[in-house]
Amino acid sequence: MQFEAGPLLSQITTPEDLRKLPKSDLPQVCDELRQFIIDNVSVNGGHFGASLGVTELTVALHYVFNTPDDQLVWDVGHQAYGHKILTGRRENFHTNRLMGGISGFPKRSESPFDTFGVGHSSTSISAALGMAVASGYKKETHRQHIAVIGDGSMTAGMAFEAMNHAGDIPNNMLIILNDNCMAIDPNVGALKEYLTDITTSHTYNKVKDDVWNLLGKMSKFGKTAQEIVSKIENGLKATLLNQSNLFESLNLRYFGPIDGHDIDNLTTVLNDLKDIPGPKILHCITTKGKGYSLAEKDQTLWHAPGKFDKTTGEIHKKTYDDPQPPKYQEVFGHTLLELAEKNPKIMGITPAMPSGSSLNIMMRAMPDRAFDVGIAEQHAVTFSAGLATQGLTVFCNIYSSFMQRGYDQVVHDVCLQKLPVIFCLDRAGLAGADGPTHHGLLDLAFMRCVPNMIVAAPRNEQELRNIMYTASLESFKNHEKAMTIRYPRGEGVMPAWRTNFEEIEIGKGVQLVEGEEIAILSIGHIGNEAIAACKMAREQGLKPALFDMRFVKPLDEELLHRVFTQFKKVITVEDAAIQGGFGSAIAEFMVDNHYTSQLIRLGIADEIVEHGEQKELYALCGIDANGILAKIQANVSTQVAKNNPKALVS
Amino acid sequence: MQFEAGPLLSQITTPEDLRKLPKSDLPQVCDELRQFIIDNVSVNGGHFGASLGVTELTVALHYVFNTPDDQLVWDVGHQAYGHKILTGRRENFHTNRLMGGISGFPKRSESPFDTFGVGHSSTSISAALGMAVASGYKKETHRQHIAVIGDGSMTAGMAFEAMNHAGDIPNNMLIILNDNCMAIDPNVGALKEYLTDITTSHTYNKVKDDVWNLLGKMSKFGKTAQEIVSKIENGLKATLLNQSNLFESLNLRYFGPIDGHDIDNLTTVLNDLKDIPGPKILHCITTKGKGYSLAEKDQTLWHAPGKFDKTTGEIHKKTYDDPQPPKYQEVFGHTLLELAEKNPKIMGITPAMPSGSSLNIMMRAMPDRAFDVGIAEQHAVTFSAGLATQGLTVFCNIYSSFMQRGYDQVVHDVCLQKLPVIFCLDRAGLAGADGPTHHGLLDLAFMRCVPNMIVAAPRNEQELRNIMYTASLESFKNHEKAMTIRYPRGEGVMPAWRTNFEEIEIGKGVQLVEGEEIAILSIGHIGNEAIAACKMAREQGLKPALFDMRFVKPLDEELLHRVFTQFKKVITVEDAAIQGGFGSAIAEFMVDNHYTSQLIRLGIADEIVEHGEQKELYALCGIDANGILAKIQANVSTQVAKNNPKALVS
Repeated sequence: MQFEAGPLLSQITTPEDLRKLPKSDLPQVCDELRQFIIDNVSVNGGHFGASLGVTELTVALHYVFNTPDDQLVWDVGHQAYGHKILTGRRENFHTNRLMGGISGFPKRSESPFDTFGVGHSSTSISAALGMAVASGYKKETHRQHIAVIGDGSMTAGMAFEAMNHAGDIPNNMLIILNDNCMAIDPNVGALKEYLTDITTSHTYNKVKDDVWNLLGKMSKFGKTAQEIVSKIENGLKATLLNQSNLFESLNLRYFGPIDGHDIDNLTTVLNDLKDIPGPKILHCITTKGKGYSLAEKDQTLWHAPGKFDKTTGEIHKKTYDDPQPPKYQEVFGHTLLELAEKNPKIMGITPAMPSGSSLNIMMRAMPDRAFDVGIAEQHAVTFSAGLATQGLTVFCNIYSSFMQRGYDQVVHDVCLQKLPVIFCLDRAGLAGADGPTHHGLLDLAFMRCVPNMIVAAPRNEQELRNIMYTASLESFKNHEKAMTIRYPRGEGVMPAWRTNFEEIEIGKGVQLVEGEEIAILSIGHIGNEAIAACKMAREQGLKPALFDMRFVKPLDEELLHRVFTQFKKVITVEDAAIQGGFGSAIAEFMVDNHYTSQLIRLGIADEIVEHGEQKELYALCGIDANGILAKIQANVSTQVAKNNPKALVS
Repeated sequence: MQFEAGPLLSQITTPEDLRKLPKSDLPQVCDELRQFIIDNVSVNGGHFGASLGVTELTVALHYVFNTPDDQLVWDVGHQAYGHKILTGRRENFHTNRLMGGISGFPKRSESPFDTFGVGHSSTSISAALGMAVASGYKKETHRQHIAVIGDGSMTAGMAFEAMNHAGDIPNNMLIILNDNCMAIDPNVGALKEYLTDITTSHTYNKVKDDVWNLLGKMSKFGKTAQEIVSKIENGLKATLLNQSNLFESLNLRYFGPIDGHDIDNLTTVLNDLKDIPGPKILHCITTKGKGYSLAEKDQTLWHAPGKFDKTTGEIHKKTYDDPQPPKYQEVFGHTLLELAEKNPKIMGITPAMPSGSSLNIMMRAMPDRAFDVGIAEQHAVTFSAGLATQGLTVFCNIYSSFMQRGYDQVVHDVCLQKLPVIFCLDRAGLAGADGPTHHGLLDLAFMRCVPNMIVAAPRNEQELRNIMYTASLESFKNHEKAMTIRYPRGEGVMPAWRTNFEEIEIGKGVQLVEGEEIAILSIGHIGNEAIAACKMAREQGLKPALFDMRFVKPLDEELLHRVFTQFKKVITVEDAAIQGGFGSAIAEFMVDNHYTSQLIRLGIADEIVEHGEQKELYALCGIDANGILAKIQANVSTQVAKNNPKALVS
């Protein structure tokens, strides 16, 4: 649904239009922009609080800087709705996150104003620094480079690496620290405390001025004081004035904190900063959800609330007559607590996704055993390894695509040392509306090549519970291996999901459907599409067999020998990249064992899958029930199969 | 060769023995330990400067703390030779880094004193924090946890992530910052400057004390001063005393800097710190190479100098009558400069490996176009991406196993955006004496699954030059893909390596040897072993054909159709993990195209390969010429082949 913009906003097609307005119009532009976001997100869904929080900042940046020649990089991008609306995408904004519509994140292919594609956190300083160094090298001295990064993103090591570099080179760059004390969940860690201290005690600059004045005035107090002053002045000045701030320690000139909702002051300060050379940081205090009171109060809930009634604030939830299956996330969260209540060795770790992963269930019940370590996947993995060296049973939950951030630590700190850390990879497979940056398609390939790593993917709630239970058993440690358990975003298939625990034999698959002409090997949740495909095939007189392999590594070789001996045609199905993934592992098994059956590998082809609803994307990639059925039909001669079912069996 | 230890050192089998000595003996223990390291490394080779630099620290730590119950984690581990010698491995120390001998790095399977295996940098704080949290949870309140980390390792984001977490929890942990201004090369970045400032201006604590005293004395100066004090005291105290240091900003109590070679003071300070609860950091200033003057003077050269005459300091170099092939590293370094001299768009990036990668050649000649960004692989990749958005041609050189640290950035910041960054993966394959942490075995698997990534591996110097040339051409950008170029540590095969540049067609392999019975498909440098194997096979009357595929992605499908049509038996050879790697890609091609030839995949099996000389490891893994020959022999019937060469040809 498309909305009318207010009278000023509707005149702004590009920032060029914005910059023609008098400064006195900017508060109204902000109001209209905020309202447009509220109107749209309430009806069309999407990320909410972050963009409301930077409304003034967005308007000020495009007003003061000559975008896109001046280059603006938004970190993560949840907050870039206002930016999109002001940069040519107002009229398409109702297509946000829909298949074929605009992306929910900045994206280079979408607009020259989107200087760098984002989605994962903490990349903005590195990217903007690259642009700044390029401009410096090309003598484009007029260009400004601005990274806008949240305090949550600042906890990721990558931001620190970039600041360490930025502080060492002279290029003109502005980092805007958008400090709202939040990631998706409340921000954690020592840095957050520090930023709060700067902000709330006295302002840092105030103290700096006071001390400076003090040193001046003290010289009036006679010799003793003068001596003291003279004795310490150099050291004090150096320490206090240039280094007494974390960012100035890194040679970034620090300005602020300032009120990020004061549009008038913002434009003034940004204008002033244009003339200050070198790397610098402006600390802006903002409120996530600003201007929509419910969102200001419960910032995690209103990060991406879904559709809602903008007047009452009621968040729309679908209602059903029948009980519905839970989300895999909920199954993970409740199951981990259930296991931890009986097993005192269990610990839970999340890098900044307590609500997203549902680890918050255990965190609330057992705060000494479940940790949010901040946006810090590298640390999360090695911290888990450290815990595991002490005999603890560690469940480390990381979204599949974010796991790419902790890959070296999985290899180097966990698997090389044969530590039995259990990695629960949430949002594996096609993630849906968040799109390419959030699809978790590579995990099967990058995990199965690592020695001492077991790779499992549960097909439903019960299987997730059972594999978690299996990994939590003390006997699991005898394997001297880590385990990956991957599962998708969203609902499973079992309304009555709280089943009794049963141990799963590591590396053992199961046959789900008896059949004759052709065998389907599936892995994980996508197996449910295979089950549906088999049912449809049956109705057409076809008899595919279906096996849920459960494990990509180790493969159930006994089962595979049976399958490849019996079937001349085999289809593999996975919601992951087919290069190097599950079907690839099956291909390796085939050639290593000289089987010559025909193998049809279904999965995600070697290209980028854009955003859309999960089901739409399954269909697009040919791994939904219809896509699988089509492959069955294409590879089985119906006539032969009907008349002589044995004919095709090897 | 085994060496005698001095009279005190020879009595020390475990730190228990050390702790029985009077404190007055410690300087002599340090002297003997240092001498023992010099004796051994001069004859047996290995890392040198780092361990000399922490001799006193090592002795002090084991003297003061109750290791291994108190847990000591060494970052990276280059500096842990003294630790190994004091913890039961003195008599085996001459086997350091040799096949079957002790590892050059701390390793959990080697000793309970090695609490955490290391090799890659910046993991120690995360690991020690995990141990500390585990101890806290288990109420083992007597245990101490110590991470020893260099200032170079501090630049990696992972260390920052861990400090952000450590500063937020109450567990007892000591971080020792071993500040010697060096990584392998001189440390870089703003943090280094900051640490130098703390150290050289006035000591930080001195300033802190002075200010504290000043505030006290000022109250004597009458009302005006008192008012000022009272006005600013809270803010000043908070800012100055608790937060005026980067580490204290992160809520880590900061102590130091102290002289890391003053064994007497070190033991005193460490003893005192035992009683101070919570997370804290001790800043120790040390000199890399301390006690061996040449090593103190040229610290990069003496990081790992090879064998040398300990008296004269002459580093032994093998001499040859014939010209020898250069190292791939040298070819990379000289070729990049050669290309950059003609192409102003070329930029070079290394995360802290300028000498190791030979990027220092370009850095010296073109300091505005080649950057050492510190130990910061994540930033290195995204900084490269930022440069590439501005149309520059970026060569980002990262060791293969360290590339695991920047994996998400490759996927998310480079390939999703189709940026033509060129990743040169040095030390790919079996790295040799550095062992498991440094082998680069996974790159083929984790790179080829990423959309928009080309994966190449040159077989020799000329091919490396040509693929670099090809990637540097403006026309390469039309592919809208990134490229991985992997090559091993050490020498190539072409003494006359400075060949003219020729463009290589992306995705095209070459046939190297004509043959009949069996085809070998090789990738990269290991193809030279395949060439040798083919020669030996010829001498035995066998006629294997050999193809250098050059690219793992895209595969040369035309060539492969020819091979699989012609040959019933095909061997793949790679110096990489066979799960998901090159042979796996060939298996995928085979099954996707319904070829039924027998495929024999040679490569690194799914287990950890320990340290040893590169050639020893090639043999161990069956990918040297003899190993390949054995597979040829086993798969070709000599009799049939000799009598009727056509018989086996499909």
